[in-house]
Amino acid sequence: MKIGILGYGNLGRGVECAIKENPDTELVAVFTRRNPATVKIQTPNVPVVHVDDVKAWVGKIDVMILCGGSATDLPTQTPEYAAMFNVVDSFDTHAKIPEHFANVDAAAKANGHVAIISVGWDPGLFSLARAYANAILPDGNDYTFWGKGVSQGHSDAIRRVKGVKNAKQYTVPIAGALDAVRSGKNPELTTRQKHLRECYVVLEEGADAAEVENAIKTMPNYFADYDTVVNFISEEELLTKHAGLAHGGFVIRSGKTGVDKEHNHIIEFNLKLDSNPEFTTAVLVAYARAAYRLNQEGSNGCKTVFDIAPAYLSAQSADELRAHLL
Amino acid sequence: MKIGILGYGNLGRGVECAIKENPDTELVAVFTRRNPATVKIQTPNVPVVHVDDVKAWVGKIDVMILCGGSATDLPTQTPEYAAMFNVVDSFDTHAKIPEHFANVDAAAKANGHVAIISVGWDPGLFSLARAYANAILPDGNDYTFWGKGVSQGHSDAIRRVKGVKNAKQYTVPIAGALDAVRSGKNPELTTRQKHLRECYVVLEEGADAAEVENAIKTMPNYFADYDTVVNFISEEELLTKHAGLAHGGFVIRSGKTGVDKEHNHIIEFNLKLDSNPEFTTAVLVAYARAAYRLNQEGSNGCKTVFDIAPAYLSAQSADELRAHLL
Repeated sequence: MKIGILGYGNLGRGVECAIKENPDTELVAVFTRRNPATVKIQTPNVPVVHVDDVKAWVGKIDVMILCGGSATDLPTQTPEYAAMFNVVDSFDTHAKIPEHFANVDAAAKANGHVAIISVGWDPGLFSLARAYANAILPDGNDYTFWGKGVSQGHSDAIRRVKGVKNAKQYTVPIAGALDAVRSGKNPELTTRQKHLRECYVVLEEGADAAEVENAIKTMPNYFADYDTVVNFISEEELLTKHAGLAHGGFVIRSGKTGVDKEHNHIIEFNLKLDSNPEFTTAVLVAYARAAYRLNQEGSNGCKTVFDIAPAYLSAQSADELRAHLL
Repeated sequence: MKIGILGYGNLGRGVECAIKENPDTELVAVFTRRNPATVKIQTPNVPVVHVDDVKAWVGKIDVMILCGGSATDLPTQTPEYAAMFNVVDSFDTHAKIPEHFANVDAAAKANGHVAIISVGWDPGLFSLARAYANAILPDGNDYTFWGKGVSQGHSDAIRRVKGVKNAKQYTVPIAGALDAVRSGKNPELTTRQKHLRECYVVLEEGADAAEVENAIKTMPNYFADYDTVVNFISEEELLTKHAGLAHGGFVIRSGKTGVDKEHNHIIEFNLKLDSNPEFTTAVLVAYARAAYRLNQEGSNGCKTVFDIAPAYLSAQSADELRAHLL
């Protein structure tokens, strides 16, 4: 399976690693908007190509993995490249998924390609956990907790506060809330009861710490509805101790069965990831395998994780899966 | 979707409960090997029919859910009924799945039906967790822990010991082993290190407790490789305190990514179930929906959870799933 990578940031580098773990995949080219001469990749003898020259690669790539961002890149890139290749993306703006799906579906169908969107862990594996659990326990409640991990959006919001030089924000699930959910109590949890926001902030010289702390804690949407802890640290400490990309989270469904609904069941899926981008791209590569196989079978159009039978993700044959993993 | 239940024990009663939770399903008949007049079911106005008369129901049932046991019922029942109906079973003898698959596939294909086998939680949801996690993290280790819950096979083995009147055996995952796996240490665990066997035993009058305890603890295959705790109790206590059908377990994959495999990731799926049969049958009903839909699309043959896209399990439309669960 010949794979192309479009965009060589954290995700692009992650895809490159994941390809080495999957002997049925081969990296054939990396596409970039930068000057290709300035982009050094890990894999020997694989060309780095300017994105303007991508058309020359039509027919030479089985699946193009799109490694752009959801805010501005993927809404235009995924339909554009689905017209040329089978594609997989990690579009994660939940509210805009129906619109993105429709755009990508039109482009993929018109050109006979398979496009799988919103692949990763949330959306992605967490969506699968929710879908399976909802189908099995129709009478129940869903809970999703994220973290502990860095929220890029919240870190950016802190950096926009006057007097802040740099910042990282960790989303931390609250243990007591998790325990209450796992115990089958089906609690109704407020925003504040589910997650804590832990901030590490580097001040500009002369900035007023109390003012900055207040500005962060009262920021609407981002922090006002949460318990927020603000820690002031040096830039050196931020760069050495808070550069990691670890993340994770929990999807739990708590539901009832029985003649009198007397039995409670807990279905839990959780992830603890040392590297958010490397794990996300490991999922992307598994779904690239599915996109290729589905297209080989004559399928086309836009799909999500809900539309893909698990066997399509695996390098093992159906016989092997039944014998060893069932 | 018109559902038939074949076999009215714990599983049959569980299917009946699950049908009430799924408004797109309807129970049309329960089939039994007993005298139908002696079988009382919960649902009003639904006939209980002798299994000898099942052929009269061909064409009137969209999916027959087979609620027999894996040891002697399902190996013959599933091929037999797959010739007449779309069927779903919970065949759980892992080693015999390839053979069962082949038999059921032949019968289902010859008659244009869909048969989904080995549906439940292990095999079933645990198999899914293993398959997804293996496809995503090819370089890693799988761990499955069961319990805390009653093992029917081990309880039966104790009851065959001379001097034992009645018994229940709980399989208990060992917390320290679970913690080591979750920490990413990738431990190599012996049988003894993973599970404890907790036995509640009622002695026959005049039996020697020490002899019985020794016979249990040294029993090959069942107990000799485990740390086993034997508690002697009265029959009354056994019937009142150990009649529950709770179960559960954990599937964990711990795998590495990165240029130098420097990042570890933990994917965990776990279940905590108040009623093993009711949860198993909730899964069966979701897969009955899939069997029906696949057959409506023209599909036939034997399938497992690996072959079914998650959207087929859900009563929600593809648009609804994308908008609400992705």
